[in-house]
Amino acid sequence: MEEVNYRIDNLQYCNWNEEIFKINNEAKLDAVHVTIAYHEDYDEVQKNVETWKEYFNSFSNLISHGNSYKDIKKAHKENKTAIFFGFQNCSPIEDDIHLVQSVRDIGAVFMQLTYNNQSLLATGCYENVDSGVTRMGREVIKEMNRVGIVVDMSHSAEQSTLDAIDISEYPIAITHANPFSWHESRRNKSDQVLKALNNSGGMIGLSMYPHHLKDGTNCTIESFCKMVAQTAELINVNQIGIGSDLCLGQPDSVVDWMRNGTWTKSKDYGEGTKDNAAFPKQPDWFEDARGFSNIENGLKKIGFNETEINGILGNNWYNFYKKYIT
Amino acid sequence: MEEVNYRIDNLQYCNWNEEIFKINNEAKLDAVHVTIAYHEDYDEVQKNVETWKEYFNSFSNLISHGNSYKDIKKAHKENKTAIFFGFQNCSPIEDDIHLVQSVRDIGAVFMQLTYNNQSLLATGCYENVDSGVTRMGREVIKEMNRVGIVVDMSHSAEQSTLDAIDISEYPIAITHANPFSWHESRRNKSDQVLKALNNSGGMIGLSMYPHHLKDGTNCTIESFCKMVAQTAELINVNQIGIGSDLCLGQPDSVVDWMRNGTWTKSKDYGEGTKDNAAFPKQPDWFEDARGFSNIENGLKKIGFNETEINGILGNNWYNFYKKYIT
Repeated sequence: MEEVNYRIDNLQYCNWNEEIFKINNEAKLDAVHVTIAYHEDYDEVQKNVETWKEYFNSFSNLISHGNSYKDIKKAHKENKTAIFFGFQNCSPIEDDIHLVQSVRDIGAVFMQLTYNNQSLLATGCYENVDSGVTRMGREVIKEMNRVGIVVDMSHSAEQSTLDAIDISEYPIAITHANPFSWHESRRNKSDQVLKALNNSGGMIGLSMYPHHLKDGTNCTIESFCKMVAQTAELINVNQIGIGSDLCLGQPDSVVDWMRNGTWTKSKDYGEGTKDNAAFPKQPDWFEDARGFSNIENGLKKIGFNETEINGILGNNWYNFYKKYIT
Repeated sequence: MEEVNYRIDNLQYCNWNEEIFKINNEAKLDAVHVTIAYHEDYDEVQKNVETWKEYFNSFSNLISHGNSYKDIKKAHKENKTAIFFGFQNCSPIEDDIHLVQSVRDIGAVFMQLTYNNQSLLATGCYENVDSGVTRMGREVIKEMNRVGIVVDMSHSAEQSTLDAIDISEYPIAITHANPFSWHESRRNKSDQVLKALNNSGGMIGLSMYPHHLKDGTNCTIESFCKMVAQTAELINVNQIGIGSDLCLGQPDSVVDWMRNGTWTKSKDYGEGTKDNAAFPKQPDWFEDARGFSNIENGLKKIGFNETEINGILGNNWYNFYKKYIT
C-alpha cells in the first residue's frame, strides 16, 4: 500500500480568486478549511455558499467542495484542493438550534461557538468576564455532535474552551491559534487549555497570522518551529496541525468589519491598535501557502522526524477528519 | 390645579381582545406597558406591531398607542388606556446596534437586556454563571440611553443587573419582579439590587405572577401588601410601582414557547416543573387588573398613606415616564 501524505491548511479567509486557488494548488494543499461566516446570519451565509458554488464551477480544475474526509482523498488524486466550510461565529444559527442541522446540510463542518465577543453559546476572548458555555451552548454542542459539526474554540475565552472540551462528546478543534506561553496574545491558548485539548483528543492548528506570532511580521521561521517543538511538549504531536489564518488579498475594510461587525458604534481595533489597524503583513517565510515548504524545512532542522512533519503539515488533520467529518 | 392620580400596570402580556381592554378600562388603567417580543427578531416584531395597529383601529374607544408620557395624560382625559410597547429580550435588535434606533422608531420604550438565558448583551437569571454586561451590552446601553429606551432587567441575573445600573446614564427599571428576601425565586431581586436601584433612581414594578409570590396562587393580599411595606424599606416608596405580569387568556403553549423559544431541543420548565408546567392560576385578589382596588385597600390597611398608595398604583411610573419616556 502506497503511503499518502496529505497537506492541509485548516484555516484560510482569503479574498478568493483563481490566483489564490492556484497558489494553494502549487503548495500541494489537498484541503483547506475556509471561513464563510464571521457575522453573517443564516440568509447571508446562503449567499456565501452560492458564491462558492460559482467558484466550484468556474475553477473545477483547481478546487472541489469537501463534505467528508473522502473528498480529501479524492482531491489528492485529482491534484485539486478540497474546500471545507466553517464559521468563525455561531451567527449563522441565529437563536435557533434547529439551524444546526440546516448549516450542516449546506456543508458547514466547523463552527466556532464565539468570535471575539460573547455569543449566545459561550464567551469570546475579548470579553472581560468569561462565564463559560451557556445553557443554549450546552444544547447546541449536543446538536453539533449529533449532526457532525466540529466545535471550534479558536476565538473563545479560557473557561468557555475548557467547558466545551468537557461537554462535547467528540474532540473539539482550535483551528487557528498558538500557545500563549510563546506569545501573549488574547487569541493564543493557555497551557491548561492545550493539556485539556491533549487529553480529549482534540486538534490545534498553528497560526501564521502575525498578531499570533512572537515578534509579529518579523517572527523568524526558527522561532516558529521552536514554538512547534514546545507545543509538542504540551500536546501530542499527532494533534498538531496548521491553520494559517491567511487572509490574502483582503482589503483593510474587511478586518475592520471582522472586528466591529454591527455590535458597536465606536471603533474596536481587536488585536490591532488605532495606529496599527490594518491587516498585518505576513512574515516572509509564509507570504502564502507555498510557505508550507519553509515550515517543512524548519521542522526538519529543529529535529522532527518525517512522520511527525507530515503529520503536522496535513496527516493529523486528515486523521481527525477521518474520524469526525465523515 | 386639580390633582390627577394615574393608574399604571407596567407589564402585561395578555392574549389581547376587546374584553381585556374593557377590563383594563374598568380598572381605570391609564397606561399599560405590553410585551411585544420574547424571542421575536426584528421582522417578527414588525408583525406584532401591525397586529397592535389593528387593535388601535378596532378599539379606538378603549386604547391608544403610547409613545411619550404625554399620551398617558391624554388617555386619562379620554378614559382610555395608553399602550406602551416593550421587549422582554433583546432579540428584536438581533446582533445589530443600529436596530436600537429602529425599534425606538416603532414605539419600543422598554427593552430587557436578557430574557432567562444569556443574550448578546447580558446574562439571564437562569444561567449558572453571570458574566455581567458584555462588550456589546455596554455599547447598546449607551445607544438605548441616546434614543430613549429604558433598560429593563426584570429577567436578568444579579451582576448583570448591577452592571446595567452602573453603566446606564439614566435610571433603569425592573418592570416586573418582587424581592428575593420575600420569596426566593430566581426571578426575584436581591436586597443588593434593590438598594442599587434605589440609589440610582430606578423603578421596580411589583409582580402578581404566582411564581413570583410567596405561596404562589395562594398568596394573600395581606402577605403581598406586607411585602410592599418591606420593599419600601429597601427602596424609596416613590420608586415602587406595579408590573403585574398578567397573561390573561394565554394558552399553555405560550408559556412553553416563552421558556423554550428555539434555544433547546430538550424541554425547559423555567419557573414551573414538569408536573406543573402550565400557566399558574392568579390569586383571587388579582385575577385581572380590577384587582388594583384590592391592592389599594390592602395598602391602606397596612398603613400607607394616600399619596404613597397613588404613587405605587401609578403616579410613580407616571413620574418615571415623564422623565425618561418623552
